[in-house]
Amino acid sequence: MEDLPLVEMESLAVGMAGEAGEILARYFRSLGALNVEFKDKRERDPVTNADTECQRLLVKAIAERFPEHGILGEEDEDKEKEDSPAPDTVWVLDPLDGTRNFLNGLPVYASSIGVMHRGVPVVGAVFIPWPGGDGMVVRAHRGGGAFAGDEPIGVFPESEPHASRLVTLPAYFGAAYSFRKPMRGKVGELRNLGSLAYDMVMVAMGVTQYSITTGPHLWDVVGGLAVAAEAGAHIALGRRERRLLGLAQSTRWERTESLAPSWRSGETTMRELRRWVMPVAVANPAIVEMVTSNLRARPATVRTLRRWWRGRRR
Amino acid sequence: MEDLPLVEMESLAVGMAGEAGEILARYFRSLGALNVEFKDKRERDPVTNADTECQRLLVKAIAERFPEHGILGEEDEDKEKEDSPAPDTVWVLDPLDGTRNFLNGLPVYASSIGVMHRGVPVVGAVFIPWPGGDGMVVRAHRGGGAFAGDEPIGVFPESEPHASRLVTLPAYFGAAYSFRKPMRGKVGELRNLGSLAYDMVMVAMGVTQYSITTGPHLWDVVGGLAVAAEAGAHIALGRRERRLLGLAQSTRWERTESLAPSWRSGETTMRELRRWVMPVAVANPAIVEMVTSNLRARPATVRTLRRWWRGRRR
Repeated sequence: MEDLPLVEMESLAVGMAGEAGEILARYFRSLGALNVEFKDKRERDPVTNADTECQRLLVKAIAERFPEHGILGEEDEDKEKEDSPAPDTVWVLDPLDGTRNFLNGLPVYASSIGVMHRGVPVVGAVFIPWPGGDGMVVRAHRGGGAFAGDEPIGVFPESEPHASRLVTLPAYFGAAYSFRKPMRGKVGELRNLGSLAYDMVMVAMGVTQYSITTGPHLWDVVGGLAVAAEAGAHIALGRRERRLLGLAQSTRWERTESLAPSWRSGETTMRELRRWVMPVAVANPAIVEMVTSNLRARPATVRTLRRWWRGRRR
Repeated sequence: MEDLPLVEMESLAVGMAGEAGEILARYFRSLGALNVEFKDKRERDPVTNADTECQRLLVKAIAERFPEHGILGEEDEDKEKEDSPAPDTVWVLDPLDGTRNFLNGLPVYASSIGVMHRGVPVVGAVFIPWPGGDGMVVRAHRGGGAFAGDEPIGVFPESEPHASRLVTLPAYFGAAYSFRKPMRGKVGELRNLGSLAYDMVMVAMGVTQYSITTGPHLWDVVGGLAVAAEAGAHIALGRRERRLLGLAQSTRWERTESLAPSWRSGETTMRELRRWVMPVAVANPAIVEMVTSNLRARPATVRTLRRWWRGRRR
């Protein structure tokens, strides 16, 4: 990792995130000018175009400067290399996270660029819309501090969450999870913003106290997690475990630096990275510990029975 | 209502919302510059100041131009007139809605100014932060069309909600309400944004398909509802009813133009308006009908038992 030109990589990532952000902002304004019906008929088309256009620009720029690095993106077109081993250093791209918000005109979305080294997020640059201009790039490289634009940022610093401060949890979180007693009155004010990359950045900036997300892909989170980690966050990954002959289910949370804790140089494939989906919790070390150790997955059996019971009554 | 100078009133409201928005944007940027710990120690102070400062400016401007109108605000200082009858025309002010977002640095808040005539929202001007500048004022007067800045807006026009489009519901909505079968697969993508005035404006702009809020005060919603109504929305108010000797509870929804359907000129008091808290649903006429007729309040008894049962197990 010491050999990586992190400063140069961050600078490339910031430039690219800023460019992608400008393209998106232009589209966002033009969508706003169309009426809703028209937006609806065209469905994703104009946005898919913007997205693929951004992705191509990014891939080209990275391949020119760092031909030996791998590239993983939500919008990848070339899937031939999926079986080949992933290089130790992989750029992870999501030109547009929060597509539904974007399409419907809610200015909560992100353009996320991250770099993992053997699974560890080491560089992140995330464009988000922000008042006072089109938006800003929130950015970091490992060891270099975390910034929103040019202003240093840090995670929420206290050892326990406050009831009156913000958190982001998945929609319908309460249907699948509950918190144990020590979290009572400390869960915080719930927000569902609809963009995981944006959620990660809000943790990095100390806007939210913690964030839990249950089914992200790598491209949703690597950029934001690189920034959050440099801003003082720890990351915990959840592994689902079946108990009692598969009737019950629980999540075991482990703090980790690497998002791919079992990374094997020369063996981990691009396909494995593409298929990666894991629950992620992120916050300062004390709060990650408190939140994950008091999180309880509701037993699948109870959920199934309840669904069956409700279905019966309808 | 025909005698009201609605154009002049809207123009005053827009000017005031814009000024309040500028003051807020200045504070928002300065809060961003402080670190989180500092923000926390000062708690609400700087914002309370901004809020009260805005409110005073607004009250002064309204009293000069429309001395015969009433003024109701969240930050009212003079509560002596509470027993007196409300004038037929009342300005309803919330200089800062979404205080927690604002304080924690999430740019989702609003400065809302609305006017009711015998309970009917007839003028609205709501400042919201928006990329491309500090923000914009979304505005309408009855019969004059609804606008975001200078661009005409309209509510989501289709007769049923789509699964892939946005809605705003209260946090933990699922604990107190459920939807009946016809809504299955059509509830939409849930967002919790943390500012009711902002939620109302998103409906007016067609960004969200519908919004339900369970405990708003008048100052949270009058400005946004005036704009939404002019943008094509209908409003339904919920009345909680106890059944089965008070053991069960349900909500009866009624569409209405007036937020105070039992308005009595010369009798309805400022205190009644201040204490007003009612569930509100807002969307185009077909969707309001569909959503409210398929909404079921979970029986209070079941909720209470469940809470008792959970408490027992801890």
